[in-house]
Amino acid sequence: MTNPRSLLAANRWPVAVLGATGAVGQAFVRLLADHPWFDLVEIAASERSVGKSYRDATRWLEGKMPERTAKLTVKPCDPLEIKAKIVFSALDSSVAGDVEAAFAAAGRVVLSNAKNYRMADDVPLVIPEVNGHHLSLLDRQRSERGWPGGIVTNANCAVTVIAMALAPLHEKFHVRKVFATTMQAVSGAGYPGVASLDILGNTIPYIGDEEPKIELELTKLLGTYDGSRIVPAEIVTSAHANRVAVEHGHTVCLSVQFEHPPTPEVALDTLRAWKGDPAVHGLPSAPSPAIIVRDELDRPQPRRDVMDGRGMAVTVGRVRRDNIFDLRLVAMAHNVIRGAAGGSILNAELMVASGQLIGINRT
Amino acid sequence: MTNPRSLLAANRWPVAVLGATGAVGQAFVRLLADHPWFDLVEIAASERSVGKSYRDATRWLEGKMPERTAKLTVKPCDPLEIKAKIVFSALDSSVAGDVEAAFAAAGRVVLSNAKNYRMADDVPLVIPEVNGHHLSLLDRQRSERGWPGGIVTNANCAVTVIAMALAPLHEKFHVRKVFATTMQAVSGAGYPGVASLDILGNTIPYIGDEEPKIELELTKLLGTYDGSRIVPAEIVTSAHANRVAVEHGHTVCLSVQFEHPPTPEVALDTLRAWKGDPAVHGLPSAPSPAIIVRDELDRPQPRRDVMDGRGMAVTVGRVRRDNIFDLRLVAMAHNVIRGAAGGSILNAELMVASGQLIGINRT
Amino acid sequence: MTNPRSLLAANRWPVAVLGATGAVGQAFVRLLADHPWFDLVEIAASERSVGKSYRDATRWLEGKMPERTAKLTVKPCDPLEIKAKIVFSALDSSVAGDVEAAFAAAGRVVLSNAKNYRMADDVPLVIPEVNGHHLSLLDRQRSERGWPGGIVTNANCAVTVIAMALAPLHEKFHVRKVFATTMQAVSGAGYPGVASLDILGNTIPYIGDEEPKIELELTKLLGTYDGSRIVPAEIVTSAHANRVAVEHGHTVCLSVQFEHPPTPEVALDTLRAWKGDPAVHGLPSAPSPAIIVRDELDRPQPRRDVMDGRGMAVTVGRVRRDNIFDLRLVAMAHNVIRGAAGGSILNAELMVASGQLIGINRT
Amino acid sequence: MTNPRSLLAANRWPVAVLGATGAVGQAFVRLLADHPWFDLVEIAASERSVGKSYRDATRWLEGKMPERTAKLTVKPCDPLEIKAKIVFSALDSSVAGDVEAAFAAAGRVVLSNAKNYRMADDVPLVIPEVNGHHLSLLDRQRSERGWPGGIVTNANCAVTVIAMALAPLHEKFHVRKVFATTMQAVSGAGYPGVASLDILGNTIPYIGDEEPKIELELTKLLGTYDGSRIVPAEIVTSAHANRVAVEHGHTVCLSVQFEHPPTPEVALDTLRAWKGDPAVHGLPSAPSPAIIVRDELDRPQPRRDVMDGRGMAVTVGRVRRDNIFDLRLVAMAHNVIRGAAGGSILNAELMVASGQLIGINRT
Repeated sequence: MTNPRSLLAANRWPVAVLGATGAVGQAFVRLLADHPWFDLVEIAASERSVGKSYRDATRWLEGKMPERTAKLTVKPCDPLEIKAKIVFSALDSSVAGDVEAAFAAAGRVVLSNAKNYRMADDVPLVIPEVNGHHLSLLDRQRSERGWPGGIVTNANCAVTVIAMALAPLHEKFHVRKVFATTMQAVSGAGYPGVASLDILGNTIPYIGDEEPKIELELTKLLGTYDGSRIVPAEIVTSAHANRVAVEHGHTVCLSVQFEHPPTPEVALDTLRAWKGDPAVHGLPSAPSPAIIVRDELDRPQPRRDVMDGRGMAVTVGRVRRDNIFDLRLVAMAHNVIRGAAGGSILNAELMVASGQLIGINRT
Repeated sequence: MTNPRSLLAANRWPVAVLGATGAVGQAFVRLLADHPWFDLVEIAASERSVGKSYRDATRWLEGKMPERTAKLTVKPCDPLEIKAKIVFSALDSSVAGDVEAAFAAAGRVVLSNAKNYRMADDVPLVIPEVNGHHLSLLDRQRSERGWPGGIVTNANCAVTVIAMALAPLHEKFHVRKVFATTMQAVSGAGYPGVASLDILGNTIPYIGDEEPKIELELTKLLGTYDGSRIVPAEIVTSAHANRVAVEHGHTVCLSVQFEHPPTPEVALDTLRAWKGDPAVHGLPSAPSPAIIVRDELDRPQPRRDVMDGRGMAVTVGRVRRDNIFDLRLVAMAHNVIRGAAGGSILNAELMVASGQLIGINRT
Repeated sequence: MTNPRSLLAANRWPVAVLGATGAVGQAFVRLLADHPWFDLVEIAASERSVGKSYRDATRWLEGKMPERTAKLTVKPCDPLEIKAKIVFSALDSSVAGDVEAAFAAAGRVVLSNAKNYRMADDVPLVIPEVNGHHLSLLDRQRSERGWPGGIVTNANCAVTVIAMALAPLHEKFHVRKVFATTMQAVSGAGYPGVASLDILGNTIPYIGDEEPKIELELTKLLGTYDGSRIVPAEIVTSAHANRVAVEHGHTVCLSVQFEHPPTPEVALDTLRAWKGDPAVHGLPSAPSPAIIVRDELDRPQPRRDVMDGRGMAVTVGRVRRDNIFDLRLVAMAHNVIRGAAGGSILNAELMVASGQLIGINRT
Repeated sequence: MTNPRSLLAANRWPVAVLGATGAVGQAFVRLLADHPWFDLVEIAASERSVGKSYRDATRWLEGKMPERTAKLTVKPCDPLEIKAKIVFSALDSSVAGDVEAAFAAAGRVVLSNAKNYRMADDVPLVIPEVNGHHLSLLDRQRSERGWPGGIVTNANCAVTVIAMALAPLHEKFHVRKVFATTMQAVSGAGYPGVASLDILGNTIPYIGDEEPKIELELTKLLGTYDGSRIVPAEIVTSAHANRVAVEHGHTVCLSVQFEHPPTPEVALDTLRAWKGDPAVHGLPSAPSPAIIVRDELDRPQPRRDVMDGRGMAVTVGRVRRDNIFDLRLVAMAHNVIRGAAGGSILNAELMVASGQLIGINRT
């Protein structure tokens, strides 16, 4: 295998996006437009888009649609119609279950944003800097399910922010209990998603199914791989999920109890020094640093910080003592990039770089 | 003394507003415009407004300026210039300390929104439904300070929401620990207050000095009067204060631990059944019910619920089990009405109704 | 006929709302909740709501759902199922054509918000203060179509603002040309309507089909009834329709050319003195004054002025010379109340008060 | 003189920013951070900032403060304290008059955003693509005022959008009359500028002094230089200026009458083909194309299009027939970049490239 970090454009992996017309699908298209390792050659979406050009099938939300993708014809979400071996899925959970399994069974590596397989015992739920080694679950997945390909998931967009911010502290001080109150951007609900009549000048103290996802996925993300399975982290989380009138960027207020409580100063040093899994360093989409610590009292702010690290960094601020637990802090990241499409792409980059795709024919 | 509940207009108490040109001052003017017991006859503000008509001195923010007040000439904040015995103060804390003391020393009853005296041992910090009997501290205040008048304060606008929502539960189950994450409206910062460039499409995870106020004032509000002093409630609170792009209405996400934990169902029944201090029932500004419990999953919402009870009710929703503590819930109320001007007026109504003003000459 | 202005509650007209679950339908329900002349006894909506209680069928958007209506069972939009003789229609134009005709043919008076019949020669398009006498077209409608009932329409929500603001000036000075640039609230698009991802921190310079409606309907609204038909006003309008991040209230910037140009002072006097058709005075929903003229340079503002006259007044400001035409001004009104449901109700009130319903059996 | 288009970094012109702590001043700092021709070496601001580091003196609004600038010490706005020969001024008009004159008298070239000198007979008011040759006025300015340096101004942020959009059409078809209704972003008012309580969920139909600036400056921008003075374009404009809840990007709805009216198709071709003054091509800040024409019905939109051409392009859409004049269209551009700081920098680039700075010593 050639060193993936110096892949020539000619050697890029052809990739496909499933569910390419929605908000997360569009983010995939944007982020893959000039990707050094991946070449977006196929797009797929639901019946009503199939056969149209991507341009005609899509209500494009942000920036310019990449010209090359615009001309692609939308295909059905069917492994018989899609050739790419690496497949990014922005499918809705209502269809992701069957479709993603079909692609894995057909020998494709599926990088999924859907919730369907996240908590399955044999499916990696990965944030590369945090738990990239969970990819080892793929062996078990392949042997148990008999899939020549596989499914790798990334986490709910809100818990991604929490897991990234807490990972450096958990490694050294063992997180035990977490109160997490989120203020989540409207783009987290997709498009058209949240009606303007619901959110203009308003906050909504509820996001369907979000709190259980946060509480559960965190234990897997920060869990340890024991050679055959993920032993969940012994962390109890109590979440309050809120929607706010912000375009992009989920903010989370955290109160954290540790087994070995650090002072705020030590916590800050730990966050600043953290580099995450070395396998991630230098990957095309990996932000450096992965965690940006702000000293200003009034940061992070979604509108001002959300694009740091090209949308892949997590910004942390207000690290201070908690009156009940040990520490309070605030973390924020881009829910569509770090929390969805960008996270999937980074997962794929890690798989390429760490040889997880050996045995998968590029074309 | 005549029954205050049937005061004739002719017998209304003449009242004054200090700091009448600011956002809270304007709320006083609006709420007092047709008040059955109080007659707004004097307004005072800072030097640069003195001598102007209220109309000319004020950048009016909401609705129509009451015609009678518009014509009043702004006076200085000086008890020699103001005759009213009941004085509502919307003064900034930078000047409230001296000015409010001067009025109390001159025999006036000052209903203050400023933070200066809230935590003083001999100054009542009152939400009538919750701890109206704390007004008894006035006797001590008068005897110790030698003031013929007195100062009564109302609480920080965010802690008011929390104290109201928790009071029914604390009475029966004894609150012990509270995690409180706020999403606070821009009107809480006064006018001009928060710059639009700071908050449009954004959230700000910091409000200067707000978290300590919330954490401290709650113990006094829910404390018990032992005949001479307020014994603080043994409640530890850890707060996260955030600003959001909402006009009016502070929302608070609460996780609560009790000495005797209720189930969510019992908590809901308790909240629904609560009527607060009977002395408050029927006061002109008292909402009924004081706490509105919503069953919908996505309530309370500031834009939709903030004017319930004419801005004086606290709306509570999402009462459910907490994973770490006992209960989670969300509470919201109007920060300028219930949390500021309306709260002061209700305090004054309670004083009138409960004979606290006996000995104060009406004119 | 008894004097309708003193109708006893017992004598109220039973009324129905078609399309009651949508945004305009809900506004009808709110405005009819305590109406002195009309008793909302039936609601109808599309197939998927039929048979449910109104409470269960409706995602209620604003304030409290009236308890009596909440319990009503949603009926189909079929005159065989609906008994009321006065029927308010908030139907979408995709179905309004057939349904409204069926009701009219079945002897019901339909007050419609849909565009379908607005420009029909024999259908009144009415803003009561402006052209209430256009109701006379009903005679022709009934005789030509053979309908024992009839259809009365109200205008597009943006043109309503323009027609009201210009009517007083047109009466005296004859409007000839109008440039109209609108800034329209999101509620004008119904619910869910405008996606928050489209409008947060944004403006959209296009509203489908809106500019032609404005340009055309104005000529009918300000046209004259010659005994058999409406002679359109000779006014040419050029419109720019924009969507802005405002909840309620359409603002329109107008540059106007007249046959006999008034000075700004004379125009202001005319606007202030205008009372509209005397038949409207004292109707329950008629605002007084119908046009509110503001002197402040920075008014009208939707958030601050939209509820003036309980949402039925039009606020006008910035009346000044135009550099090309004669006058510039800005007008604003509530698009859901004045511009839709409230306008329909006022139409119905005018019909009751002016004896247009003689011959229609109340029940 | 070396070819400025290949200036080595070592040969960059040292430049200063006056009024560097405000919103436009910060935009200068951001845009100059990596400028190929200019090296930001000095910053100046008002008394209360002098002597502080730029970091400490500034409430930084957007993105990251450039590290090199952060360390600079703020100097007074005095040519004795500032050495740079090229000086960008973001001064408020209340002080710009005297300060900018002092710098010009001291041999500096001042690129000004203030209104003070814009309409002076001997001061160029320049948008490089539109009227770069107006810089020739500098000769007259120097000779008449005896200034070894000079003042070059850029236009009001709203009129810049209009002038850019109309320039291509005016060149060929001669614009005669313009109705212009703006929807202007809050950043146009600086920081703190518009209070959030004024603009959240609102529009304000007035911006102080804005309409006369638009109407007047357009005639100079599109005027012709006759060798000694600018002959104003014979264009009459009638403007409506509105503030909307948008962060950046002024949108303008235009209705235009021409001497030789083009069809919409011809107008579109003209706009698409336009390249502006050839002297501008290839300048570091010059967008290419300068005007972006969008075919989608609902564009331009500020949030989606404002950063096109790195904030320097003007986006035009909805070119269509007008019912009264000849054409309607909508134009939008970034008010802080194209309409202020970026425009000034482009002016300076044009001066460097066209040899206007010959005789000015670089250091």
